[in-house]
Amino acid sequence: MTRETRRYHLAHRPEGRPSRDAFDLRTVELPDPGPGEALVRAQFLSVDPYMRDRMRAGESYSEPWAVGDPLRGGVVGEVVASNGAGVEPGQTVVGNLPWAEHSLADGGDLTPVDTGELPRSTALSVLGMPGRTAYFGVREVAQPRAGDTGVVSGAAGAVGSVAGQLATLQGAEVIGIAGSQRKVDWLTDELGFAAGIDYKTDHVGDRLDELTDGVDAYFDNVGGPITDAVFDRLAVDSTVAVCGQIALYNDEQTPMGPRKLGKLIETRASVEGFFIRDFPPRFRAATTHLGELAADRGLAYRETVTEGLANAPDAFLGLFDGENVGKQLVELDRE
Amino acid sequence: MTRETRRYHLAHRPEGRPSRDAFDLRTVELPDPGPGEALVRAQFLSVDPYMRDRMRAGESYSEPWAVGDPLRGGVVGEVVASNGAGVEPGQTVVGNLPWAEHSLADGGDLTPVDTGELPRSTALSVLGMPGRTAYFGVREVAQPRAGDTGVVSGAAGAVGSVAGQLATLQGAEVIGIAGSQRKVDWLTDELGFAAGIDYKTDHVGDRLDELTDGVDAYFDNVGGPITDAVFDRLAVDSTVAVCGQIALYNDEQTPMGPRKLGKLIETRASVEGFFIRDFPPRFRAATTHLGELAADRGLAYRETVTEGLANAPDAFLGLFDGENVGKQLVELDRE
Repeated sequence: MTRETRRYHLAHRPEGRPSRDAFDLRTVELPDPGPGEALVRAQFLSVDPYMRDRMRAGESYSEPWAVGDPLRGGVVGEVVASNGAGVEPGQTVVGNLPWAEHSLADGGDLTPVDTGELPRSTALSVLGMPGRTAYFGVREVAQPRAGDTGVVSGAAGAVGSVAGQLATLQGAEVIGIAGSQRKVDWLTDELGFAAGIDYKTDHVGDRLDELTDGVDAYFDNVGGPITDAVFDRLAVDSTVAVCGQIALYNDEQTPMGPRKLGKLIETRASVEGFFIRDFPPRFRAATTHLGELAADRGLAYRETVTEGLANAPDAFLGLFDGENVGKQLVELDRE
Repeated sequence: MTRETRRYHLAHRPEGRPSRDAFDLRTVELPDPGPGEALVRAQFLSVDPYMRDRMRAGESYSEPWAVGDPLRGGVVGEVVASNGAGVEPGQTVVGNLPWAEHSLADGGDLTPVDTGELPRSTALSVLGMPGRTAYFGVREVAQPRAGDTGVVSGAAGAVGSVAGQLATLQGAEVIGIAGSQRKVDWLTDELGFAAGIDYKTDHVGDRLDELTDGVDAYFDNVGGPITDAVFDRLAVDSTVAVCGQIALYNDEQTPMGPRKLGKLIETRASVEGFFIRDFPPRFRAATTHLGELAADRGLAYRETVTEGLANAPDAFLGLFDGENVGKQLVELDRE
């Protein structure tokens, strides 16, 4: 007994900013689960900036998708059928699955969701990959100390909003850079950021000069000119955690910018790229700690939820315009 | 009783590559040493790329010289007279002194030279600031491991030639990038580098691709396009020690280049600037160890010696054309 489902496939490799026709919504037949497999009905899809990189040919930090492949990402869903997959029908699981209403998965690739008091969607946001990325990036890479001036770019995004709060909990005074006054207000009024900069209306460098004598720890999600302005203001012995470069992901040519290595000599700064997939043995501990911080220390989060699989491409493309506040999710039509 | 001496002063702040008229050779009168002071006759002057930066206004990692100030740097000389300075006439000392035949200095700013079997000039080369810079940069920042592929730019310079040997002694296979076949031959035939690249005739990226699958540790003395080529080939978990950027020191505008932070995410590389003045408590230990390596482990060095104070500006300017092999010194006319 097969089951029809709708699934997105990569239609072609986009050049520059993708258009909707890069996303090919197909109706496909899924067979019954094979031995060790489960059938999962998706409830929430994660759309993430790094996926732009997977649409590109050639090596990068994530494996490229082949043209014609299903698009994939973090999915929270309900087990519909299990063929000895180690999960039971009715159970809520998270896994790396296609952008589809239903998918087959090996049981070993599915993890039962345990988000405690928080909604299951948080397995894709504050308690999921974005939260863990912030967690390891702040604690292991940027390492702000009490009293430090921290700066987070993309501060109202899924990772940045958590990173800024974690740095604040470690005693840093955190300045968040985001793309609207509404986002900045959220950072300062609800998340405890010390200050915010709306890069679309403020001059980032001038505002940083008003707010601080030097940046001790910078958590970078965006790259480009915003990052240039922060680099120019790095303090002695500062740290930079390079998490993402969303400002550059749609560029086909290597973008040019001012050379900054001399600034690193002047400040003895350390700049380190990191990648959440390097920390898997400690995912569970991170998730537990993030859950405790949310329950006991006021760690807040927000999700921007787009309804319907058909709108997943727009939800993804909206990331590059900063349309999301907090984690961008797609909620699939309830059955 | 005063003493006449010739001394270089900064005539103006040069724009771009300095010309000789930026160096004003004056004849000045020195008084007798005051209490705690010594009169020193210079034997060797050090000329170093970082001095270009001190000719510039504005903050950097070294204090700017004022127009009209004497140019200063590392000097090895003989004490001629001491007024309770804690050093004795006839003693050889090293200190940060003007580019001059004679200078007055506080005794506390002079250190007796002890270079063991090596000539006193090595207090300005392998046993001096350049050697220590290589020492801390390799051991504390780049930290190559046995079996790693290391790359050193400016590899035939005073710092790079020592850095590459130290990395080799730590078990790395080191590729040196330098500006002539003669230099490359020196690196591979006499210093134990695994390979060399003449950037003036070779395509650096293509040669690196032939020589290695990825660069684990990069010691950067030059910046610019050579460094871009190395960054493109960084391996996972690689390290970059940013020591100097001589390719850029004469630029008046911030030079532009390809943005590379995305590469750091891909590789989880760590890039760190460092500065020898952060390590002074351990200078003595470093110097002792470098001396032992020279005596027992074949650590080699070379000095390019220009004769006469009048030629000091040319010796300095020659650094930017790579005219030196190893440490560039100026030897003052013997009395």
